[in-house]
Amino acid sequence: MLSVLLELQRLKRLDRTGWVLRGLPPGAESVAAHSYGVALAAMLLADEVRRRGVEVNVERVLRLALLHDLAETRTGDMPRTVAQYYGEELRRRAERAAFDDVMRGLGREAEQAYGELHEDYERRASLEARLVKAADIVDLLAQALYFERAGARGLGEFWENAAERDFGLEGEARAAVGDIMRALVEARAGATG
Amino acid sequence: MLSVLLELQRLKRLDRTGWVLRGLPPGAESVAAHSYGVALAAMLLADEVRRRGVEVNVERVLRLALLHDLAETRTGDMPRTVAQYYGEELRRRAERAAFDDVMRGLGREAEQAYGELHEDYERRASLEARLVKAADIVDLLAQALYFERAGARGLGEFWENAAERDFGLEGEARAAVGDIMRALVEARAGATG
Amino acid sequence: MLSVLLELQRLKRLDRTGWVLRGLPPGAESVAAHSYGVALAAMLLADEVRRRGVEVNVERVLRLALLHDLAETRTGDMPRTVAQYYGEELRRRAERAAFDDVMRGLGREAEQAYGELHEDYERRASLEARLVKAADIVDLLAQALYFERAGARGLGEFWENAAERDFGLEGEARAAVGDIMRALVEARAGATG
Amino acid sequence: MLSVLLELQRLKRLDRTGWVLRGLPPGAESVAAHSYGVALAAMLLADEVRRRGVEVNVERVLRLALLHDLAETRTGDMPRTVAQYYGEELRRRAERAAFDDVMRGLGREAEQAYGELHEDYERRASLEARLVKAADIVDLLAQALYFERAGARGLGEFWENAAERDFGLEGEARAAVGDIMRALVEARAGATG
Amino acid sequence: MLSVLLELQRLKRLDRTGWVLRGLPPGAESVAAHSYGVALAAMLLADEVRRRGVEVNVERVLRLALLHDLAETRTGDMPRTVAQYYGEELRRRAERAAFDDVMRGLGREAEQAYGELHEDYERRASLEARLVKAADIVDLLAQALYFERAGARGLGEFWENAAERDFGLEGEARAAVGDIMRALVEARAGATG
Amino acid sequence: MLSVLLELQRLKRLDRTGWVLRGLPPGAESVAAHSYGVALAAMLLADEVRRRGVEVNVERVLRLALLHDLAETRTGDMPRTVAQYYGEELRRRAERAAFDDVMRGLGREAEQAYGELHEDYERRASLEARLVKAADIVDLLAQALYFERAGARGLGEFWENAAERDFGLEGEARAAVGDIMRALVEARAGATG
Repeated sequence: MLSVLLELQRLKRLDRTGWVLRGLPPGAESVAAHSYGVALAAMLLADEVRRRGVEVNVERVLRLALLHDLAETRTGDMPRTVAQYYGEELRRRAERAAFDDVMRGLGREAEQAYGELHEDYERRASLEARLVKAADIVDLLAQALYFERAGARGLGEFWENAAERDFGLEGEARAAVGDIMRALVEARAGATG
Repeated sequence: MLSVLLELQRLKRLDRTGWVLRGLPPGAESVAAHSYGVALAAMLLADEVRRRGVEVNVERVLRLALLHDLAETRTGDMPRTVAQYYGEELRRRAERAAFDDVMRGLGREAEQAYGELHEDYERRASLEARLVKAADIVDLLAQALYFERAGARGLGEFWENAAERDFGLEGEARAAVGDIMRALVEARAGATG
Repeated sequence: MLSVLLELQRLKRLDRTGWVLRGLPPGAESVAAHSYGVALAAMLLADEVRRRGVEVNVERVLRLALLHDLAETRTGDMPRTVAQYYGEELRRRAERAAFDDVMRGLGREAEQAYGELHEDYERRASLEARLVKAADIVDLLAQALYFERAGARGLGEFWENAAERDFGLEGEARAAVGDIMRALVEARAGATG
Repeated sequence: MLSVLLELQRLKRLDRTGWVLRGLPPGAESVAAHSYGVALAAMLLADEVRRRGVEVNVERVLRLALLHDLAETRTGDMPRTVAQYYGEELRRRAERAAFDDVMRGLGREAEQAYGELHEDYERRASLEARLVKAADIVDLLAQALYFERAGARGLGEFWENAAERDFGLEGEARAAVGDIMRALVEARAGATG
Repeated sequence: MLSVLLELQRLKRLDRTGWVLRGLPPGAESVAAHSYGVALAAMLLADEVRRRGVEVNVERVLRLALLHDLAETRTGDMPRTVAQYYGEELRRRAERAAFDDVMRGLGREAEQAYGELHEDYERRASLEARLVKAADIVDLLAQALYFERAGARGLGEFWENAAERDFGLEGEARAAVGDIMRALVEARAGATG
Repeated sequence: MLSVLLELQRLKRLDRTGWVLRGLPPGAESVAAHSYGVALAAMLLADEVRRRGVEVNVERVLRLALLHDLAETRTGDMPRTVAQYYGEELRRRAERAAFDDVMRGLGREAEQAYGELHEDYERRASLEARLVKAADIVDLLAQALYFERAGARGLGEFWENAAERDFGLEGEARAAVGDIMRALVEARAGATG
C-alpha cells in the first residue's frame, strides 16, 4: 500500500495542463485537487439523484471518482488535443496499463477489483460511471467560473454546449445533472456578462 | 448545490499552513489535494481492514474523508499551535458552525445528514471516523516523506512517536494501521538516514 | 532575540488568506509584505497629520505597525469570516496569548512594553493605534487596486463603504485619512470603470 | 507566423514534468527555458567540435535545438514513463503530426523544411541531430546539478550511466561530448558527496 | 564550458522584471523562456526575410538571439526605468563587462568571437542584429497578448506606437517586421476591444 | 501620497534576486517582506542597545529601515555582482535619483526630509544608519538560516566572516550586534553541521 500512497503524492504537484496552456499561473489547480472536487461533486450529485428516487450505489460512485485520474502519476495530465494524435482507443489502453502498474503489489484480489472500476469508468458502463463523468465536467466548469470571477479570460471554449452536454444519463439522473449544468451556465452569464 | 461546488474551489488554492510555516514553497500542498490523499488512503485502508475480516462501512469512510476539512473554506487552515490558544472544544464548535453554513441551502434532510457525519468525525465516534483520522495522518506522513526525499528538512516533529500513535482502533483495524505507519517510518529511515 | 527573528521569517511565506480565498495566485501578498505596506503607509500618514498640526508620536505609530500582525507566526492569517465563529473578544485574547509567546525570552521589561503596544492596537486606545488601523485599510485597498489594475476581479466587497469608513479619528487626523481613502476610491473608479 | 508565435508562449508556462513528479516546486523549469538551455549548450558544443577540426553545420544545429520540443504546445511534456505505454514509434508519429499542425499556415515550403528538421532530430539522422540530443542531456544534467546544489534530492536516476552514455557520435565529436559529461559528473560528485 | 552551462541555469529562474512590476504573478516569464521566444521568432522572421529575397546570415541571427540576454546571469533583469538613472552608454559598458566575465574560460578565440557578437547586438551594427532586436519586441508583444487574453490588464504601455516602431530596417526586412507587428496589434484589438 | 502607496505595492511582488540566482523557488522572499524583517530586527536591536545605556533615536532607526530599499520600485533588486560593473558611487547616485522620483509629489518639505534619511543610510552617517545596516544583514542571515533549516543548500557565501563583520559601530552597540551575529552563526552550525 505504501507505494501507492507515495505515488499519489505526485498528483498534488501535477498541474492540470488545460489551465497552464491557457495562461493560468503555475499551481492553479493540481490533478489531486481536481480529483477531490470531482469526488465531492459526485457525492452531492449522487445523493441528489437518490433523493429523486433513482437507485445509485454511492460507494461505487466515490470509488470511481477517487480512481479515475490516478494513472496520471505515470502518464502526466495530457491535454485534450493530444488524444487526436494517439486515438481514443490507444489512449485508453495506455492509461489502463499505467493504472495497473500503479496498483501492482496490493495483491491480486485488490488489483483486479480496482482494475474493474477503472474499466467501468473508461467505458462509462454503469450509471455510477456516467455520474462521475458528469461530476468531472461539473467540477471543471465550477473551477473555470471561479477563475473567471477572479479575472481570468479566454476560457470560453469550456462552456460551449455545456448546458446541452449528454452524459448518457436518463430520467431523474439526467434531470439532476441538467439542473446543475444550467445553474453553472447562468452563474457564469452573471459573472462575465 | 452550486454554492457548495463554488465554495470548495477555494480549497484547491488554500495552502496547508503547516508546510508554509516550515519553509516549504507556496503551492506545496493545497487543502483539497490533501483531502484527496486522505480519501484515497482511507479507501485503501478500509479495503485492507475488510480483507482482514472486520466489517467496515466504506461508503461512510469515503463520505467522512471528503467532508472532514470542508469547513476550511471559511476558517482557513489553522496551524496546530492555534488550537492551544482557543481550546479544543471551542475550535470544534466554531468549525461545526462554519461547516453548517457551507452546507446551508442543500435542504434540511441533506444538511442534517452531512452535519452528523461531521460530528462523527470530530468525535471519532465510529470505527469509520477513527480510520479516516488514521488516513489523515498516513497521508500527512506520506507527504512529509515525499518532501524529504526531494530535499526538504526540518520536518522531524511530524515523525515523533508516529509508529506508536494510537487512533482508538482495535484488533485487525489497529494492526492494519500499525503496518502502514511502520512501513512509512522505515521508508523514511532509508530516505534521510 | 534570535528566536523572534527566526520566527518572523514565517510571515514572509505566509500568504494573506483573503486574497487566496478570492482566487489570487499563491504568493500574491505575504503577511510580512503587508506589514511593510502598513508601516510605510502609517509613516506617511502620521507625517501628514503632523504637518496639519496634530501632535502624533511617530515612533509609537511605527512600533504598532510593525507589531500588529506578528502573532500570526502562531495563529496563521485567519480569514475575516472566522471571527464570527469565535467571537471578537475571544479572538483578541487568543492573539494576545500568541503574541506573548512569540516575545517570551526578550526579558520581562521588553515583553511587557511590547505587550502593552499590542494591547493598545487591539483596543484602538490611542490616536496612534487608530492611525495604524487606518493605514492597515489603506494598504489593503492600495493592494486591491494594484491587483485590479493587473486584471483581478471579484474584489468589490473590500471597497464597500470604504470612503465613509470611520476609524474613531477626529479633526485633521480624520480629514487626512478621508483624503487618502477618497483618492483610492477615485483611482479605482478610473481603473475598473 | 502569428499563430506560431502565440502558440510558443505556452511553452514558457509549461513545467517540465520530470521535475514536478520528483517534488520540485511549480515553475522549477519551463519547456521554453529548457529549450533555451539546449540551444545555447548546442552552440557551445558545436563550436567546440568545430575547433577540434570536425565540420559541423551550426545553423542546422541551432534550428534543430529550437524546434525539437515545439510540438509540446499540443502534446504537453509527457513523462518518460509514458513512452513505454504507447511505444516509441507511435510517440514519434503523434509528435510529428502535432508539430506539423503547429507549423500549418507558414506556407508549404516552410512547413516542409521545418518538418524535415523535426524528422532528422527524431531519427538522429545527422551529426547535427546527434549533437543536439547530447546537448539535450547536457542541459538536463546541468539543471539537475543546479537543483542539487540548491538542496534538491532524489534526482540520482538522471545521473546513472551518464558518463558512459552513447549518442551515436564518433571521433572528436564523441570526445567533446564525453569531456563535458565527465565534467558534469565530477562537479556533481563535489556537490553531493 | 561547464561554468557557462551552470551559470545559464540562473536565467531559467530569473523572472522578467517588467511583468513582475506590473502585477503578473511570480514565474510569469523567465529570462531564459523569453530568450527562447526571441530565438524562435528571429528564426521565423529571418527565414521569411530570406524568402522575400534579402540575404540574411541565419546562423548569425540565431547566435545573436541566444547571447543577447546572457549577461543577465550577473546583472539581473533591470527594468527599463533603470536605464535613465545610469545612462545608456554606461549600461552598455557594464553589460559587456558582465558578458565577458560569463564567457571567461572558453579560450581566447571563443571569448573574442562571442564578445564581437554581443557588441554587434548592442550597437545594432548588422542587419542580423536589427532583426534580433525586432524579434525581441515581437516576442515581448506576443507574450503581452497571451497574458491579456488570459485576463491580464495594465499592459497598454507596451503597445504604444508598436506598429510604427522603427528598427533601422529597410526594404523587405522592414516590410516583413511591419507585417508581423501589425498582425499582433490587430489580434490585440480583437482580444481586448 | 497615493502614488507612493501604489508604487510600493511592487515591492511585495519583487523577488530578492540573490535567492533566485541561487536556485530558491520564485516567491522565496519579496523585497517588501525583507524590508519588514529589517525594520523589526532594527527595532529589537535599537531597543537592546538602548537598554545597554546607549542613546539611540528609535524613530529615526525605523524611518531609515522602512525607506532603505524603497527605490527598488524603479531600479529592481540588483544582485551584488552588478555593483562591481557600475561602481559603488554611481550606484548610489542612481538609487538616490530613483528615490527622489518615487517621493516626488509629497511636497518639498517631505521630499527633502525623506531624501536626507536616504542619504544618511547610504553614507552610514549616523549611529542609526549603521544599526539599520546591521539589521539588514541580521535579517539576511536569519532568512538564510530559515531556508537552510528547510533544506536549502549553496548559501555558504553569505555566512563567510559573518561573525567578524564590522558595521562601524562601537561600544555597546557593537557588542549587541556582535551577540546576535554570533547567535546566528551558532544556530547555523547546529542546523547544517
